[in-house]
Amino acid sequence: MIRRFDYGTPLPTDALVQEIPLCGETLPFFTVAKTENGLTFTYPLGREELIYGLGETVRGINKRGHIYRSWNSDEFSHHEDKQSLYASHNLLIFSGEGKPFGVFFDDPGEVIFDLGYTGADTAAITSVNGDLRLYLIEEDSLNAIVRSFRQAIGQCYLPPKWAFGYIQSRWGYAADGEVRTIVNEHRSRHIPLDGVCMDIDYMVDYKDFSWNKEAFPDLRQLSADMKQEHIRLIPIIDAGVKQQEGYDVCDEGLRNGYFCTCEDGTPFVGAVWPGRSYFPDFFRPEVREWFGKKYHGLMEQGIEGFWNDMNEPALFYSERGIAEARQELTKLLDMNLGLDAFFHLKDVLMGMQNNRRDYASFYHKYAGQQVRHDRVHNLYGGFMTRAAHEGLRSYDPDKRHLIFSRASYVGAHRWGGVWQGDNTSWWSHILMNLKMLPSLNMCGFLYTGADLGGFSGNTTEDLLLRWLQLGVFTPLMRNHSALHTRDQEIYRFGMQEDMKNILTVRYALLPYLYSEFMKNALTGGSMFRPLAFDYPEDAAALRIEDQLMLGEGCMIAPVYEQNARGRNVYLPEDMLLVRFRSAEDYCLIPMEKGRHWIDLDLNEMPLFIRKGCIVPLSRGGEWVEAVDFDTLTLLGWLDGDAAYAIYNDDGTVAAPVLADGLREIRVRTADGKAAAEAQGLTVDAAKLIVG
Amino acid sequence: MIRRFDYGTPLPTDALVQEIPLCGETLPFFTVAKTENGLTFTYPLGREELIYGLGETVRGINKRGHIYRSWNSDEFSHHEDKQSLYASHNLLIFSGEGKPFGVFFDDPGEVIFDLGYTGADTAAITSVNGDLRLYLIEEDSLNAIVRSFRQAIGQCYLPPKWAFGYIQSRWGYAADGEVRTIVNEHRSRHIPLDGVCMDIDYMVDYKDFSWNKEAFPDLRQLSADMKQEHIRLIPIIDAGVKQQEGYDVCDEGLRNGYFCTCEDGTPFVGAVWPGRSYFPDFFRPEVREWFGKKYHGLMEQGIEGFWNDMNEPALFYSERGIAEARQELTKLLDMNLGLDAFFHLKDVLMGMQNNRRDYASFYHKYAGQQVRHDRVHNLYGGFMTRAAHEGLRSYDPDKRHLIFSRASYVGAHRWGGVWQGDNTSWWSHILMNLKMLPSLNMCGFLYTGADLGGFSGNTTEDLLLRWLQLGVFTPLMRNHSALHTRDQEIYRFGMQEDMKNILTVRYALLPYLYSEFMKNALTGGSMFRPLAFDYPEDAAALRIEDQLMLGEGCMIAPVYEQNARGRNVYLPEDMLLVRFRSAEDYCLIPMEKGRHWIDLDLNEMPLFIRKGCIVPLSRGGEWVEAVDFDTLTLLGWLDGDAAYAIYNDDGTVAAPVLADGLREIRVRTADGKAAAEAQGLTVDAAKLIVG
Repeated sequence: MIRRFDYGTPLPTDALVQEIPLCGETLPFFTVAKTENGLTFTYPLGREELIYGLGETVRGINKRGHIYRSWNSDEFSHHEDKQSLYASHNLLIFSGEGKPFGVFFDDPGEVIFDLGYTGADTAAITSVNGDLRLYLIEEDSLNAIVRSFRQAIGQCYLPPKWAFGYIQSRWGYAADGEVRTIVNEHRSRHIPLDGVCMDIDYMVDYKDFSWNKEAFPDLRQLSADMKQEHIRLIPIIDAGVKQQEGYDVCDEGLRNGYFCTCEDGTPFVGAVWPGRSYFPDFFRPEVREWFGKKYHGLMEQGIEGFWNDMNEPALFYSERGIAEARQELTKLLDMNLGLDAFFHLKDVLMGMQNNRRDYASFYHKYAGQQVRHDRVHNLYGGFMTRAAHEGLRSYDPDKRHLIFSRASYVGAHRWGGVWQGDNTSWWSHILMNLKMLPSLNMCGFLYTGADLGGFSGNTTEDLLLRWLQLGVFTPLMRNHSALHTRDQEIYRFGMQEDMKNILTVRYALLPYLYSEFMKNALTGGSMFRPLAFDYPEDAAALRIEDQLMLGEGCMIAPVYEQNARGRNVYLPEDMLLVRFRSAEDYCLIPMEKGRHWIDLDLNEMPLFIRKGCIVPLSRGGEWVEAVDFDTLTLLGWLDGDAAYAIYNDDGTVAAPVLADGLREIRVRTADGKAAAEAQGLTVDAAKLIVG
Repeated sequence: MIRRFDYGTPLPTDALVQEIPLCGETLPFFTVAKTENGLTFTYPLGREELIYGLGETVRGINKRGHIYRSWNSDEFSHHEDKQSLYASHNLLIFSGEGKPFGVFFDDPGEVIFDLGYTGADTAAITSVNGDLRLYLIEEDSLNAIVRSFRQAIGQCYLPPKWAFGYIQSRWGYAADGEVRTIVNEHRSRHIPLDGVCMDIDYMVDYKDFSWNKEAFPDLRQLSADMKQEHIRLIPIIDAGVKQQEGYDVCDEGLRNGYFCTCEDGTPFVGAVWPGRSYFPDFFRPEVREWFGKKYHGLMEQGIEGFWNDMNEPALFYSERGIAEARQELTKLLDMNLGLDAFFHLKDVLMGMQNNRRDYASFYHKYAGQQVRHDRVHNLYGGFMTRAAHEGLRSYDPDKRHLIFSRASYVGAHRWGGVWQGDNTSWWSHILMNLKMLPSLNMCGFLYTGADLGGFSGNTTEDLLLRWLQLGVFTPLMRNHSALHTRDQEIYRFGMQEDMKNILTVRYALLPYLYSEFMKNALTGGSMFRPLAFDYPEDAAALRIEDQLMLGEGCMIAPVYEQNARGRNVYLPEDMLLVRFRSAEDYCLIPMEKGRHWIDLDLNEMPLFIRKGCIVPLSRGGEWVEAVDFDTLTLLGWLDGDAAYAIYNDDGTVAAPVLADGLREIRVRTADGKAAAEAQGLTVDAAKLIVG
């Protein structure tokens, strides 16, 4: 059951697709009071109470013990004490002694979540706006709360099937020949690959929807040639539109008044990659339609996927900031530049970027009003993705396209996927990215993944290898890195054979991964879940922070420490360990419920299958379309008959119907042997362990 | 056996106290070649080879898989990819298939350790100077290599016994009344305490050896009153001397030519906390003597301990840097401040701090030459500590005094302790600080510890509580935090009772901790050791990165994850788990060799005692001198007779003789019971478990 409570004058957010009527009762659990920061909801935490939710954030699956701040931020350094990343997903789920409950703070402005930080026994959530809808979600279990919330916020975005392939990306790929080389280096070594991302370098002066005609003299031919190789190109689109006369997007936007404005109605200018730029007012349907159709230009070149970036929106600086900085600099030059002046100057310069005053200085036309940006800041990125989604859909209404975004708010899960932002080549970020997965799923974001190997900083080959061993399971599986960092393509490293072998596991598992993605996407379930959600009565499972349930039958537990040759794992029930070296080189080890140490050499990765469950393994392929989803080896440890509902479709149908794609794999066991059958599939039961 | 190999024209470093003759043979293991960065020593790594050493650095006990850079740096953010911290400890120990060996690169300039980073199977160590002495240490075991090296570098610094007490510190304590309040808040709650650090705020304009007479109208009286309360004040001394006419230290330094100079012989000026400052040339004995005696002024006020800071030396900026920055700023103001200009300006400003060109622009008089600073950079901090050590010793030659430093090089371990630098209130830093301990011990630094609760950033109470549970074991046990961060004194928090209880464990364990410190300090042993050093044949022990051997009989394994209620522990042999809530509230659980999960509530901490070993537990006290070292409860799990050599002295004797302080505790077991005796001690065997 979901109940709605309103405070102040909430603006629409489009987070929900269900209309929940206003509840006339008093909000339970929380006390509500105006505080110096806004409107604060206070809830006493039980000593052993756990808190879930918040989607894309740093730290634990259990969010207790930190302050989080919903304020979409271009934040390049994801330390454990960061309060904000690129997205705002204001769902909390409290799991204490009584029945668990969820609460969604539907507020597009800044919201501060003090979850046992100031006082270890208190959660205090503050809406700075004070204008919000609060949804209270009460169901019998943690998983039921998520399903109820997910039903309310609507079905998540569905990518095409090819987008489950391995994607190579790097800030710096700048020319036709470079793209071809990267693809060749993969194909010639039989390293699976389905896509290459084009970062900002492909554009002319970072102008959206442009491409450098010298570097890419025939983009259509390149796309076509790549398509022959079963590779899709995935160009980036940024939020800011370069201020430049004669640039069609700029001219049209100005002419039609499509950009965000200052208070006086003149277009707001902020500097991002293209230099001084305008920001489309994605809050308006006509602006979204205009901007969305701009994607068609690249689609006409054969492009089928995009990523939206810088859409928090990031602001390097504004006219206001620069004027103030000039003033300060001039003042400081007049003085004897002493210690205080030096630190002040640094502060001024550092403070220009993503400055709060800039976010309070421009406006949207929204809900019939002129709305100051900071009141609705967290919606901006999602609405850009909505523009893209609608544009892509209008180009080809029957087809799914790839679109994923950096910034988002709940609701944006219906319009695109998200990547987990600009992480770093740190071992700690493997675990950070793992912990985000179930939280993102709770908030509707199923198509997601991290920059494998790490975006900023320099990777090492063992770090990339271990990270790939997690990436095998994430719907978006992309290797991405920043300019000026160490080359990070698999073929650069001595351990490339091990990395390639790990990729074969991904492609072999695609029938399972795609089935679990689609089944959960179409029914409001989570592909990744904390162990606590599936084993709520198991005290040990409650505090497991480095393992996840994956789909119906699996648990994952990757190695995330350098120089480790194994790890501790907790099995909440009997499970079959599959220790993979490659799709063809693996061993099966039945293991009992409980705590175990698992040996895992650098080139080995584990998958755990719940006793009684079946996981279908294909023969893999070097690209998604080469994978035969119908010829399957079944893995599992059975003590009786079992079944698995596998899903498949053509990979592009825009509105798939679950029932149409499901086929039942049935296994009968007798006398210690298993026999399998499935209509239209070739299923091999030889690897099933019975007993 | 240690062999010496010379390259180029090495400068003296005073790292060793033994004279090792030059070896005429060819250096084994390594190939040596001139490379673009300097002189490079290359060694092929076995697939499973581990690397130890490097003292104060980030990342693993096993250093493999990263680039480290010996270049003492004022580095406030200890990410896992930092290459340099405050100290340079150029010892490596390789442990592969053959016999392990150690190698000490005795080079006071920049040394780059590429340990399986560029190529996973290669270690490449580059001396930028190309002038160095290389010492090759070959012994039968890892522990023997350390003992051999430690013998060569001489006995480590010995602090007074009171310095093993709990110390409260904060950047910001600024007045007599504040110090008294802090002490009262501890004493009135019976939270043990032995010292209060005074950070830079006690000075006048950050002038070394000054104190603010308004804030501290009678420092001598304050010291005396504190001494009555069994509290020592521990003021900070920085490396830079404020440029100010009439300030005696400045005037004397200038008059006598005691400061580092520019190439032309004029004193070098750099900005640090006091603004423009001079830097004493600690490389000269007469400068050390002069500066060391300056400490006497504070000692005359009753001070018995100091900490030396900013002695890498940190440089906020120099005259050169400021001139260049002004020029750049002026240029930029003349332009339309665009994107490139903006980022360039940021780079200029950020690059002014600790700029390499500044370190190449001043000179020391050393070894009969004018030596450019960057050639000997890493010696500076240690030589400042040497000045302090010699000054303190000259004030009272029969007494030990407390001195610990931020920067150091091998050799400085003879002159003072080190704290582990300006860490952050991050959970990951508990583990980082744990991992530094054995590496620091290998390099001679036994008196060490981390800023408990974290220096920068805001702690949470659970973080401080868990960090204290590690700090219980570190010789330096200091809670320290930065200006503008959350108050971090124990009494600020709801969990203060739990924290106090943890402190009682520290004070109860002092007889063991002091014994193990002194025995190892006086014999060249390590108080903290990787498990691999004590169990070299145990493959599981080799890769344990979150447990340490502590002294003769113990292993530690603190909890370092937020919201955890226990942890996995590997026991390399049968051990007794002591689960402490306080010195009086603990339980004893014999456990078998192997992997275990240990439940540990927030207020519980484990100590593991090797089967057959005894750990003496005192009744504790609220300050060190109140602890009765002679009345002891023995903890242990015995299957036969056992003994422990306990050490004690008056806590201040300058040159203690090990044999004079040792007393043997002997335990006889028979019929499942234990009886203990020790001359001059009251020992209680009732808690010993036999069987």
